[in-house]
Amino acid sequence: MDSVQQLKEFAARAEALDAADPLAHVRERFLLPEGVVYLDGNSLGALPAAVPEALTDAVHRQWGTDLIRSWNDNDWWNAPLRVGDAVGALIGAAPGQTVAGDSTSVQLYNALVAAVRLRPGRSLLLTDPDHFPTDQYIADSVARLLGVEVRRVPAREARSVLAAEGFDVAVAAYAPVDYRTGEAYDMAALTSATHEAGALMLWDLCHAAGALPVQLDAIEADFAVGCGYKYLSGGPGAPAFLYVAERHQSSFDQPLTGWHGHADPFGMHGTYTPAPGIARARISTPPLLSLLALEAALTAYDGVEMAAVHEKSLALTGFFQECADVLLDGFGFTAATPREPERRGSQVALRHPEAYPLVAALVARGVIGDMRAPDLLRFGVNALYVSYGDVLDCVRQLHEIVSTGEHREPRFQKRSTVT
Amino acid sequence: MDSVQQLKEFAARAEALDAADPLAHVRERFLLPEGVVYLDGNSLGALPAAVPEALTDAVHRQWGTDLIRSWNDNDWWNAPLRVGDAVGALIGAAPGQTVAGDSTSVQLYNALVAAVRLRPGRSLLLTDPDHFPTDQYIADSVARLLGVEVRRVPAREARSVLAAEGFDVAVAAYAPVDYRTGEAYDMAALTSATHEAGALMLWDLCHAAGALPVQLDAIEADFAVGCGYKYLSGGPGAPAFLYVAERHQSSFDQPLTGWHGHADPFGMHGTYTPAPGIARARISTPPLLSLLALEAALTAYDGVEMAAVHEKSLALTGFFQECADVLLDGFGFTAATPREPERRGSQVALRHPEAYPLVAALVARGVIGDMRAPDLLRFGVNALYVSYGDVLDCVRQLHEIVSTGEHREPRFQKRSTVT
Repeated sequence: MDSVQQLKEFAARAEALDAADPLAHVRERFLLPEGVVYLDGNSLGALPAAVPEALTDAVHRQWGTDLIRSWNDNDWWNAPLRVGDAVGALIGAAPGQTVAGDSTSVQLYNALVAAVRLRPGRSLLLTDPDHFPTDQYIADSVARLLGVEVRRVPAREARSVLAAEGFDVAVAAYAPVDYRTGEAYDMAALTSATHEAGALMLWDLCHAAGALPVQLDAIEADFAVGCGYKYLSGGPGAPAFLYVAERHQSSFDQPLTGWHGHADPFGMHGTYTPAPGIARARISTPPLLSLLALEAALTAYDGVEMAAVHEKSLALTGFFQECADVLLDGFGFTAATPREPERRGSQVALRHPEAYPLVAALVARGVIGDMRAPDLLRFGVNALYVSYGDVLDCVRQLHEIVSTGEHREPRFQKRSTVT
Repeated sequence: MDSVQQLKEFAARAEALDAADPLAHVRERFLLPEGVVYLDGNSLGALPAAVPEALTDAVHRQWGTDLIRSWNDNDWWNAPLRVGDAVGALIGAAPGQTVAGDSTSVQLYNALVAAVRLRPGRSLLLTDPDHFPTDQYIADSVARLLGVEVRRVPAREARSVLAAEGFDVAVAAYAPVDYRTGEAYDMAALTSATHEAGALMLWDLCHAAGALPVQLDAIEADFAVGCGYKYLSGGPGAPAFLYVAERHQSSFDQPLTGWHGHADPFGMHGTYTPAPGIARARISTPPLLSLLALEAALTAYDGVEMAAVHEKSLALTGFFQECADVLLDGFGFTAATPREPERRGSQVALRHPEAYPLVAALVARGVIGDMRAPDLLRFGVNALYVSYGDVLDCVRQLHEIVSTGEHREPRFQKRSTVT
């Protein structure tokens, strides 16, 4: 079968899949630019249509007109808990266990210190050598401060290390999805193995929240953090979130003891008494414009079940892999993302020695993915707004670029600036 | 002289002062609601006119259209340093020493840990028992983690304690303005006394940045933090800032080692190597919508000298005190703010046993100040948009309320919600 015929068949399949997609209408909840195929929602989600109006209200009415009174009148005070619960609903957390605010790094730091303090006498902090850099840096920093040791164990080996040396592990800190390859891990199994060792489990959900059917309560996770700007589409640098299982809240002993986490914040006391419940995990005044944008963004999930999002996500990534197998065959790509649906996050990563110029050439054509050094092309799918047609378009254009050598033009070669 | 005649005379003076005010035109750079006298800019600054347009651009063009490309194309990457320098220009900091992002509590924590680490072997962290609560809580938390002791010494006694026991002080952490009384302290003298003891000086500028002519470089301050949402008018929960004097940057050893502070952030290395310069004080992805709002807000200072802001601020607070002395005499108020200009921040605080209902009655009339338990009425003046007429209006209405007993109406009595 020649490639023209193959393309025709894939196009017919994409059309049929899009026509039958029960989430197709959700795409209208996003303001996607014309002529762009956006496959970088795993890095920065697209703009939800509800955000601009919410921000205009936040700026003109709440800030500009109501001014300081908005803390009461527009309930700014409870926004971190309100938005936390809205995120919680997407990650299997019952209300009262999730707070929104600050960055993932800050939330992670707070949670890791508190977690290690809950396991005195244990000297190991287990984390993944392939974890996102911040997670490793923060783990090292916390370990240095608290006098424990970071042991880097790949996710797939963590269970056996826990079985052998778990008695000395205070906390295991992992992500359910490898941010580079998109490989997904069994959250329930690792959480269970961690608990069997008497240790605590902290999940970084940056690449899972809003895309995978995370079930924090059901798997009895202890702590979780994640950002608001990837699949949750809360905007650039949207506030992160922190989940503290209810059973740990009364003993959650965080280092970032800001006044918003105080039991009586407006009493202006000189010493810290933590608030009851998840409120103690608040730090201080959150960036409200960003937080209210995130709150509006989350309404894109109204009436959408995470199971349906996950089903479509797997169908999209599976279709991507099929198209890539056929259309990119013989051009030097290798698959980095597992084929088995249960081992796949909401992205497809391909390896190619010319990853940088290939991604640059795609971007110039309006197909936006990203790359991670040295050789990964990453394509995230957000099932809320990515179509099967988008996926095929991406692979088709990548095929055109690599088969014509378009990516070897000087304008696509690596510059020294950030990517 | 009866009170009608007194009011007439004050009104004539206010009119003359406003007519001669060289900063009067700057008020047009703010969108103040009709019928409101806003004297709470020390808690949440008013909305600068430049913000809505900047946010619309940030949302629709930068996020919605340029999407992930904005990190390069709209220079999101450098925003924390760019906005940091813009704040730095208002606090006497040469470029390359200030970074914007996160909250004051987080910046303070990072700076305090780094500061204590720079003075190994010294066991005391000096701070003010009247410091804003977060500052005390964070100092206690840092001390506990690093094994040092917090000694609470009032600002006015700090110099003598430093002279006597300074050899054991690692860091002195103070504010140049008492957030309740508005009393201002001599930053140069305390910084100098701290250095003579071999200790490091950390200033919390929340109630000074944008209002007082802070000169961090000139007084050789070591570290400073502050928020973006009071006098700087960056919006609710606007990102905070951190100043690290250039001489300390290469040894600044912070606990919040996020990937944005790495020397090669996109190299995605597994261990942390801090960036050179102030960039190492970055943590991770900042809340860009809030950060870009702050950046736009700071343009309200374009062409405005901090000396002129301070001069008008002192004239406004002095006029407030004069009006209050005459119009509120005999109604149970006592002055909490010093009379001497050099001991006065940009606010006037009055004590009254009925502070809560008095402020509530004022707010109901559109005169917005705030109160701090148990008995303080606080009125902040932002010289960029507060007029002498505003100040008189506030005192005149407070006089009407207290003299008629309006504040004793049930609707003004304390509720259990936050204020």
